[in-house]
Amino acid sequence: MNDLDFHIGQLVIANRILANEGVVDAYGHVSVRHPLSPEGYLLSRSRSPALVEAGDVIEFTFDGTPVGGDPRPPYLERFIHGAIYEARADVHAVVHAHAEAVLPFTITASPLRPVVHAASFIGAHLPVWDIRDNFGDTNLLVVDPAQGRDLARGLGSNRVVLMRGHGFAAAGRSLPEVIRMSVYLPHNARVLLEALRLGEVKGLSRGEIEAHAAFRPDDPAMWRAWEYWAVRAGCRELL
Amino acid sequence: MNDLDFHIGQLVIANRILANEGVVDAYGHVSVRHPLSPEGYLLSRSRSPALVEAGDVIEFTFDGTPVGGDPRPPYLERFIHGAIYEARADVHAVVHAHAEAVLPFTITASPLRPVVHAASFIGAHLPVWDIRDNFGDTNLLVVDPAQGRDLARGLGSNRVVLMRGHGFAAAGRSLPEVIRMSVYLPHNARVLLEALRLGEVKGLSRGEIEAHAAFRPDDPAMWRAWEYWAVRAGCRELL
Amino acid sequence: MNDLDFHIGQLVIANRILANEGVVDAYGHVSVRHPLSPEGYLLSRSRSPALVEAGDVIEFTFDGTPVGGDPRPPYLERFIHGAIYEARADVHAVVHAHAEAVLPFTITASPLRPVVHAASFIGAHLPVWDIRDNFGDTNLLVVDPAQGRDLARGLGSNRVVLMRGHGFAAAGRSLPEVIRMSVYLPHNARVLLEALRLGEVKGLSRGEIEAHAAFRPDDPAMWRAWEYWAVRAGCRELL
Amino acid sequence: MNDLDFHIGQLVIANRILANEGVVDAYGHVSVRHPLSPEGYLLSRSRSPALVEAGDVIEFTFDGTPVGGDPRPPYLERFIHGAIYEARADVHAVVHAHAEAVLPFTITASPLRPVVHAASFIGAHLPVWDIRDNFGDTNLLVVDPAQGRDLARGLGSNRVVLMRGHGFAAAGRSLPEVIRMSVYLPHNARVLLEALRLGEVKGLSRGEIEAHAAFRPDDPAMWRAWEYWAVRAGCRELL
Repeated sequence: MNDLDFHIGQLVIANRILANEGVVDAYGHVSVRHPLSPEGYLLSRSRSPALVEAGDVIEFTFDGTPVGGDPRPPYLERFIHGAIYEARADVHAVVHAHAEAVLPFTITASPLRPVVHAASFIGAHLPVWDIRDNFGDTNLLVVDPAQGRDLARGLGSNRVVLMRGHGFAAAGRSLPEVIRMSVYLPHNARVLLEALRLGEVKGLSRGEIEAHAAFRPDDPAMWRAWEYWAVRAGCRELL
Repeated sequence: MNDLDFHIGQLVIANRILANEGVVDAYGHVSVRHPLSPEGYLLSRSRSPALVEAGDVIEFTFDGTPVGGDPRPPYLERFIHGAIYEARADVHAVVHAHAEAVLPFTITASPLRPVVHAASFIGAHLPVWDIRDNFGDTNLLVVDPAQGRDLARGLGSNRVVLMRGHGFAAAGRSLPEVIRMSVYLPHNARVLLEALRLGEVKGLSRGEIEAHAAFRPDDPAMWRAWEYWAVRAGCRELL
Repeated sequence: MNDLDFHIGQLVIANRILANEGVVDAYGHVSVRHPLSPEGYLLSRSRSPALVEAGDVIEFTFDGTPVGGDPRPPYLERFIHGAIYEARADVHAVVHAHAEAVLPFTITASPLRPVVHAASFIGAHLPVWDIRDNFGDTNLLVVDPAQGRDLARGLGSNRVVLMRGHGFAAAGRSLPEVIRMSVYLPHNARVLLEALRLGEVKGLSRGEIEAHAAFRPDDPAMWRAWEYWAVRAGCRELL
Repeated sequence: MNDLDFHIGQLVIANRILANEGVVDAYGHVSVRHPLSPEGYLLSRSRSPALVEAGDVIEFTFDGTPVGGDPRPPYLERFIHGAIYEARADVHAVVHAHAEAVLPFTITASPLRPVVHAASFIGAHLPVWDIRDNFGDTNLLVVDPAQGRDLARGLGSNRVVLMRGHGFAAAGRSLPEVIRMSVYLPHNARVLLEALRLGEVKGLSRGEIEAHAAFRPDDPAMWRAWEYWAVRAGCRELL
């Protein structure tokens, strides 16, 4: 197996994990920066993540053009991925999803913030981006480079940006890192939703959140979770 | 496979999807307007949606009479379907269900409304119909043409009507559309239930809701979800 | 198959349904009045409902004595069943469980009541019985005939009695009826829990609740659900 | 099978049960005091509990050193286990997990307490330990003997200690007992979360909680649940 095939295999696993853990359903997607040509990224053709196979993966340039002119329909919202890779050289994997537990925080003024250690990876600040601010009434989908870049500006230097009435985009240094963030983001949201009803909430301190920096993107503790989620998603043979 | 067999197969898939996604349980049903004779519709005999097979599907006239005198027991509430097809020439598929997350909005004054883009299809306004208003104390089931027509009036020109203490009826331009509405209706309800506890909720604007009109009933994005839900429901071989 | 074997088979299905629908877990049980000798009842030996097989079923007299001196350990709480059969000639099947969604209503002053038509079977009034009232500090289990009879008095002429900090007992005219009540009781509880946070709740009227009386204990609509739940629980071959 | 193999087999079952019941996910662990040399304990190498096999189990001394110098990476947080065994001769099994429903009670002032009889085993008082009190800003993990001993002091003579923003540690007299505690702890938390919104909550009395003392750590009622959970977790052949 060459290096590209390995990364495509990892991307297939990432798709299946997100589906199996309930982060995505029929919609949502995950990409990885191209390991050999960093001005492009790998993303499935328009297909539900649970069903993605290696043959579905297409290389795109940052402006959303399929390299080699692949004729199969792409995701309408692929511009989310290109814009984030373009703006952030430190990012190697991107997830877009509309996990249910995250959505209430996108339509209210109550800020989502990390309150459990497993979610410290999501970062101290999660901005909310509203497509209506600069583009008026739309169907809320991010369907061209201008909208993608506006979203990337909303993300700024953070790990996760919430999208009003829509979902979130998460940016990681590796596939295992962005998957871990995407799984624990709704977990943290559910904990916070319940805790807020019990009274004042004691969140993680800035120092506690920054302690995640000690984890390298290829830390063994991240691969432990990767193995677990992959096996649960029926991908034991792809590991 | 002739055209009628194809539509019956689609209806079987629709039944299985609704069951597998938790929209219906032992009760609830889905119909499609007859593709060849639009003054009738196709609906299973009285059977739980998870178990419906092609041989269970019966053609009914709008008044609930089985064409050809099929002797098997029909759903008591088939009058919901006929009345909506009769009143709305634009409707080609109908779902009746009592998905749990929708029910709180049928018994309180808090209005259900679309707050996430995936649910923009349910429309801006979801009226609540109460059988008690015109029929007094009943067991809440819609069991004759008069009750069905009263419900259809409650629906009016909307996409979804809530039924007090009972569930909802959804009207779509195609099976994939009405299934998508029925899956995202309880999803939207759960998001709204949580958001309301966090404070003021920023819903979709009228313009954002109307942007769904750009989707045709046979849009490829709808078929992507249809494929996903069908495979999850064990219907890969029926696609 | 003789009549007794048929009823034992039905009881096995009932056990599996309750486990599969999440009404019981490792604990909880269901019995049926003996079809041939109505002064006794059939109940599994002490075993988790998901695992009960025909050979586990034992006949008991109302005072909890196994007929024929079966030496296998019985459920500690079998006295719930005998006491209810003794007090209520109309009851032919009993469930005891501690379904999670019901429990909040056993430890607060907020009354559980039917708000959706599927739960009209649970009756207009659900009393809460507290073992501490007459027996002081115990481990809350109903472990002798006196405690069982006290609980039966708490049930009175109702369908369901809630047990403080413990669960509920449901009394039906047939196994399908008591299973249906037991499945829709927590469903109704979840709907009510959510609705109460939205504001004033419009419950079922007395007349609407009484409309369930039109259903006979062997109504076909009940068997439709029975078939569905049995197949889901892996009991297709036992039907 | 010798005695040690039997206990290792039980530990494998315990791992699988915790994963299957949702108490642990990719992270969390369970240990048992060594049956032959009580100054040590048995714990898997660093692996997700759902995937643990007999060959993964390593013997550790209380200070976290693998006996015989096993070179495989251990859990970073094994110090939780050694410190509790060291401090509490009555404890023979320890679980560490971050079950979602428990977490809100670790970050608010609302005390978690037993309100249903199935959870009486968790004890009357559940202290909350905050690693920040004595160790300042960390990544919240318990990664050395000093932190482990501080946590054990936080546990004191109780059954369960909550860990702020992190999870809990539970100490039992046997594996079945600590598993039962760990399963019913989040169940009790969910019931309490809902009940608190309904109004004043009637908890278990001190006498009711102490009635659990009548249960011996090898009580048959505990083995009934063990059999059920093990079969659900796919461990029928390991029983």
